[in-house]
Amino acid sequence: MSKILRQQIEKITPLSDNEFEYILSHFTERKLRKHQFAVQCGQAVKFDYFILSGCLKSYHTDNDGKIHIIQFGMQDWWITDYQAYYNQTAATIDIDCIEDTEMLCLSYENREKLCAELHKMEHFFRKKTNIRNVALQQRILSLMSNNAKERYDSLLEQYPQLFQKVPKHLLASYLGVTRETLSRFNSTSK
Amino acid sequence: MSKILRQQIEKITPLSDNEFEYILSHFTERKLRKHQFAVQCGQAVKFDYFILSGCLKSYHTDNDGKIHIIQFGMQDWWITDYQAYYNQTAATIDIDCIEDTEMLCLSYENREKLCAELHKMEHFFRKKTNIRNVALQQRILSLMSNNAKERYDSLLEQYPQLFQKVPKHLLASYLGVTRETLSRFNSTSK
Repeated sequence: MSKILRQQIEKITPLSDNEFEYILSHFTERKLRKHQFAVQCGQAVKFDYFILSGCLKSYHTDNDGKIHIIQFGMQDWWITDYQAYYNQTAATIDIDCIEDTEMLCLSYENREKLCAELHKMEHFFRKKTNIRNVALQQRILSLMSNNAKERYDSLLEQYPQLFQKVPKHLLASYLGVTRETLSRFNSTSK
Repeated sequence: MSKILRQQIEKITPLSDNEFEYILSHFTERKLRKHQFAVQCGQAVKFDYFILSGCLKSYHTDNDGKIHIIQFGMQDWWITDYQAYYNQTAATIDIDCIEDTEMLCLSYENREKLCAELHKMEHFFRKKTNIRNVALQQRILSLMSNNAKERYDSLLEQYPQLFQKVPKHLLASYLGVTRETLSRFNSTSK
């Protein structure tokens, strides 16, 4: 399974077998069952998670108990509370499993160690963070200026596989619409 | 003025005089007057801008002609359309000057060159991008789950200097409220 990680890194920078073995030795494997938490609001965030299989969601619960979904995570994606992970502070969001999930976990110390030791890993993580930045900028633009139907169409275009994996009420929460509205979109989209 | 850039880099990694001179030689200086554009929607985005003095705003104009402000930029901040800059595609947002502005401009090629040549610059830009990621995550959470008064208080707490620099109608646009609502917040905040 770890070859998924190698493939991702090698899209950005080539690795020898020895280098990949060394990098992989800084990760730990973890299996979580559906509904288990990877990150819990108020607790320390030890790891950034590279998803080998399964599906997760990260979300914030507001004062009225309403859930706001920040992102989903699937195979080949990274997920954590980056604010808490980078600043080594307590989590302000929750991340839990939508289905049974296998992940490779990278502690903050090991990430910094790999980046200091291997310029190519610093390069890899800079590039990945750039990509994440673009996705976040798109999400902000979408939240500010698109209507719900535009957000739906754009999500469907970018991540069609989410529509197979993620229950409808969670997609509705991500889009900020009711389930009824989402069903209407489902029936009118190409 | 370029010492502001050196100070920022040295908060993350120390530099010799020669190293800084070398790094600086990859930037070009640019002065823009109030209302001039640094980035224009539909055009190529050649530079990431490090702001030496002045103030800018980045924003998206929706189909109804309504402006949505993504971020402001002041001394010591970086600003560009990162989506277009990283992917070397046309801009999807505008960035213009709220007041006369001086900037150091870094082309994408020079950024990649510096990162490849100097591991410490790759480290610097990775760390800066992490910080930007956290700010973007906070903006998303705030757009999704805070009410306008909470967004106002949080902005005032994080960036009090913005309230001196930025006209009220632009702050209102950033917060997604009317000017009248903003005035009410002004009079009720601590």
